[in-house]
Amino acid sequence: MAVALKMSELYVPTLKEDPAEAEIASHRLLLRAGMIRRAAAGIYTFLPLGWRSLHKIEQIVREEMDAIGSQEMMMPAVQPAELWHESGRWSDYGPELMRLNDRHGREFCLGPTHEEIITATVRHELRSYRDLPLSLYQIQVKFRDEVRPRFGLLRGREFIMKDAYSFHATQESLQVHYDEMARAYGRICERLGLDYRPVDADSGQIGGKVTTEFMALAENGEAELVYCDCGWAANMEAARTVIPRDPAVTGPVPLEKVHTPNLRTIADLAEAFDMAEHDTVKTMAGKTPEGRLVFFCVPGDRELNPVKADNAVPGVQLLEEADFQAYGIPKGSLGPVSPPADTRVVADESLRDTVAWGVGSNMNDYHFFGAMPGRDFEVALWADLVLAEPGDGCPLCDGTLKTARGIEVSQVFQLGTKYSESMSATYADENGDEQPFLMGCYGVGISRSLAAVIEQHNDANGIAWPVSVAPLEVAVIPLTVGDDTVWPIAESIWHELAALGVETVIDDRDERAGVKFADADLIGWPFQVVVGKRGVAEGIVELKIRETGQRETLRVHEAAAHIAALVAKARGALA
Amino acid sequence: MAVALKMSELYVPTLKEDPAEAEIASHRLLLRAGMIRRAAAGIYTFLPLGWRSLHKIEQIVREEMDAIGSQEMMMPAVQPAELWHESGRWSDYGPELMRLNDRHGREFCLGPTHEEIITATVRHELRSYRDLPLSLYQIQVKFRDEVRPRFGLLRGREFIMKDAYSFHATQESLQVHYDEMARAYGRICERLGLDYRPVDADSGQIGGKVTTEFMALAENGEAELVYCDCGWAANMEAARTVIPRDPAVTGPVPLEKVHTPNLRTIADLAEAFDMAEHDTVKTMAGKTPEGRLVFFCVPGDRELNPVKADNAVPGVQLLEEADFQAYGIPKGSLGPVSPPADTRVVADESLRDTVAWGVGSNMNDYHFFGAMPGRDFEVALWADLVLAEPGDGCPLCDGTLKTARGIEVSQVFQLGTKYSESMSATYADENGDEQPFLMGCYGVGISRSLAAVIEQHNDANGIAWPVSVAPLEVAVIPLTVGDDTVWPIAESIWHELAALGVETVIDDRDERAGVKFADADLIGWPFQVVVGKRGVAEGIVELKIRETGQRETLRVHEAAAHIAALVAKARGALA
Repeated sequence: MAVALKMSELYVPTLKEDPAEAEIASHRLLLRAGMIRRAAAGIYTFLPLGWRSLHKIEQIVREEMDAIGSQEMMMPAVQPAELWHESGRWSDYGPELMRLNDRHGREFCLGPTHEEIITATVRHELRSYRDLPLSLYQIQVKFRDEVRPRFGLLRGREFIMKDAYSFHATQESLQVHYDEMARAYGRICERLGLDYRPVDADSGQIGGKVTTEFMALAENGEAELVYCDCGWAANMEAARTVIPRDPAVTGPVPLEKVHTPNLRTIADLAEAFDMAEHDTVKTMAGKTPEGRLVFFCVPGDRELNPVKADNAVPGVQLLEEADFQAYGIPKGSLGPVSPPADTRVVADESLRDTVAWGVGSNMNDYHFFGAMPGRDFEVALWADLVLAEPGDGCPLCDGTLKTARGIEVSQVFQLGTKYSESMSATYADENGDEQPFLMGCYGVGISRSLAAVIEQHNDANGIAWPVSVAPLEVAVIPLTVGDDTVWPIAESIWHELAALGVETVIDDRDERAGVKFADADLIGWPFQVVVGKRGVAEGIVELKIRETGQRETLRVHEAAAHIAALVAKARGALA
Repeated sequence: MAVALKMSELYVPTLKEDPAEAEIASHRLLLRAGMIRRAAAGIYTFLPLGWRSLHKIEQIVREEMDAIGSQEMMMPAVQPAELWHESGRWSDYGPELMRLNDRHGREFCLGPTHEEIITATVRHELRSYRDLPLSLYQIQVKFRDEVRPRFGLLRGREFIMKDAYSFHATQESLQVHYDEMARAYGRICERLGLDYRPVDADSGQIGGKVTTEFMALAENGEAELVYCDCGWAANMEAARTVIPRDPAVTGPVPLEKVHTPNLRTIADLAEAFDMAEHDTVKTMAGKTPEGRLVFFCVPGDRELNPVKADNAVPGVQLLEEADFQAYGIPKGSLGPVSPPADTRVVADESLRDTVAWGVGSNMNDYHFFGAMPGRDFEVALWADLVLAEPGDGCPLCDGTLKTARGIEVSQVFQLGTKYSESMSATYADENGDEQPFLMGCYGVGISRSLAAVIEQHNDANGIAWPVSVAPLEVAVIPLTVGDDTVWPIAESIWHELAALGVETVIDDRDERAGVKFADADLIGWPFQVVVGKRGVAEGIVELKIRETGQRETLRVHEAAAHIAALVAKARGALA
């Protein structure tokens, strides 16, 4: 159906001023361009132009899902608590899960994801390995009660997601579909015009071990990532890293207890004893859910990564002020030698081959130097524990890591049997034995992608949409309206473009040229055709390409065909 | 994009047995045909085929909304309580409104409709009469905590609706758009293949006075409607009616108090005194929200319509057992003569010209005969109060009314200023004076329409979809799979049809013919092409039209083109 709209009829309440509530470009521009409005903290209404762009993203995602044989369906937003009790997430999820009771007092939640519902839906119907694999997806509103909703559509409490779930009999089958999904997610980013990187990530609340995030690069992104020129990249919170080691002492030395009054920081200690910070070892204390003490040892110049700590010791929480008193240990002087009884020592991989640690003594004003693992204390677990830093080595090649910021627009997960085991979702294998499904889950933040596209495509004047996501492709801007020279030319170009299958709006408002130009750039129409009196007298109109600012003069009678060809080319570049 | 799917890959878990939970055809068939599954009471998951049909309904509705210039947008499902306090509906709505608190304890609800949000969204942006009219719509999930969810998608707690809202400066403008919407709703019903009637209705919770429901006729429909051959129809709860009157006494007679021991019912009274029931008057008691007594008088042979009672006396509630004791009045012997002090008498219009009522005396065992309004008691309000019945007169012509049952699939409302006044949503008129918007709202039950289509299009074997709503248009059913005579012919017809733009599935499962035929009829593919060994040897295949059961023999090489033409014709009939 031809799309030929009039600015005078479109509901586009643009704002002249920057709204105070907006901290970053996408939020500010979505509000100013009349695309969204705030209904409550982290909860937005999409106005017609915002909805058009969102709908285009949905459609791109839908096409890519259909292309890999995932089948669209729709699960409910309101989910019964029983299923979440089965999976264990009712208690694990915390206050981000929005909960409610129905009129009979039964407990429900608003779905932040749908692993429970999908598993419960298929568990009685996928009975045999012959029914596998199966991949299902939905495009749906989700709910997450963020403690601090911010950045407009980037961190909202109600948002739109595509979530897919797959069921498999073998790891190979799961891997094949996971790879298909990852490729589809790459294509989606490309079709949205996003500069992105797939990065190693952590699976967090969802579960599973193997996961990749697709990160749209953006200065204002909430996520930090590290990457190497070899192509490897990772979310900072999950990044493996090779830490350059050059210990001053390379062979065993005797353990020595040293009086170190008033030396509480690694920097103080290193300075007083003329050591490199990386030759000291920093110890951080945590406790398991059962209350057992855990000491995490990392190089003195590095930070413990709490996500890695949690992966090494599931459920561990770093001690807070009151905990130190309760356990009777001195916060600034911890170390692996002679810790309190039953303490588990977990040390960073990079320390494995070092033999002379400078560490706290678990007493104020004393340190141990020359402490040697295996001789002076036992390390229960060697694990990757530190936060990556620029300059670290790439885990895949000889390169060094750089950092960037990004927006997580999508993520793929191999869940394994986390949900199928807890929820007794099994199929009969070739021998007739019941086996839990292997599962994958795959999410695209649809409304978040809209914001990410704007973060990458804007300038001082407004949004500069890629044609694939623009609310409309072309704006025809007559400088006078309803007259008998300019207006008929503008109207006919508008009709011609629509007839050629180009989505076109005509700015038929009786406004000054400056107002029309400012709105056109703010809203970000990719192609803008300016029809003025002088040009028309010479038989020409002017075309402006929003993203490049490039201008071109076109003969009136050739204008529509030429623009339609440019639009087709731009679409093709993003298809 | 060509749609060519394989049954072996589609997730369609059909059921052989009727599920116990299903009471009516649409619910039973949606479950059996693998289109929906229950997640909780009144909450359903749409499986891929159900979603395909639902999506088609959405698209039809979207096209008809776009065609009348309503603009698509999307409002949040989670709505802040403050807005509902402003409109007054937070307290009016009762337990059907699903409420929840966020992590900070702030109150929210899950939107059953969106008058509050839309009014709050536009009230600061539509500033002038020049910005009007404006019409906006969304297609969205809604929530209503029904006390007794039932009938599958017909009365659910989470369901999908299209809701539209319009804003106007004048009643004429509102009327124009209301009429456009009503015509669009008629077209939607036609395109869905629904046998429907627009009916006069009551506006209930939503508010406003002028409203029309679109009722799909269905034996199992929850709504009762009355209609006349002249074309007029109304929801039973709202139906005006002309009550045939033929009073035995036509002139004033003296008021007479009669001893009527043990005569508690109208039937007993009529029999004992040899009167027609319609010559007696039945009195029902209610109380206003302020606690004032109201006596509703209706002809003895008719029932009081509680919806009409509420329209006549807003907020009135009929007395319950305990109330009669509290007010000290005898439940079975009420009447308008000498009621308790401060009682308001409201009488049915049909009694206005009658002069000799047989009524209760507000004492047990006595009645008044010959009671005359204006002489023996005062009627505070004459109003339409009774429930219509078949045989009543049509309010528009000389015809008599008949009854039918139906499913309310959509409804249009003129809200007037109900929301704009309570929520201070105003625009500046031509004189610069602030005026409240005139508003309309317009809803289509999308998931309910899916059920309504099935209620009208099914037989003993399953669903018989109209082509516009069918999950796919054609099924190719080879009786053998993977062989080198039947299979290649079936596969090529499948590909040809897809290339001709027909949505086609091939039943490539290695199943018996009987299983394939049963599933095809259960799911209800509109056109079914059977490819068998004997036919192929003769160069023919068989086409079955699901809805009529008609069969046709086609030459193999002409089959795809012929079927594509039939599909196009069927689509055209519903376009």
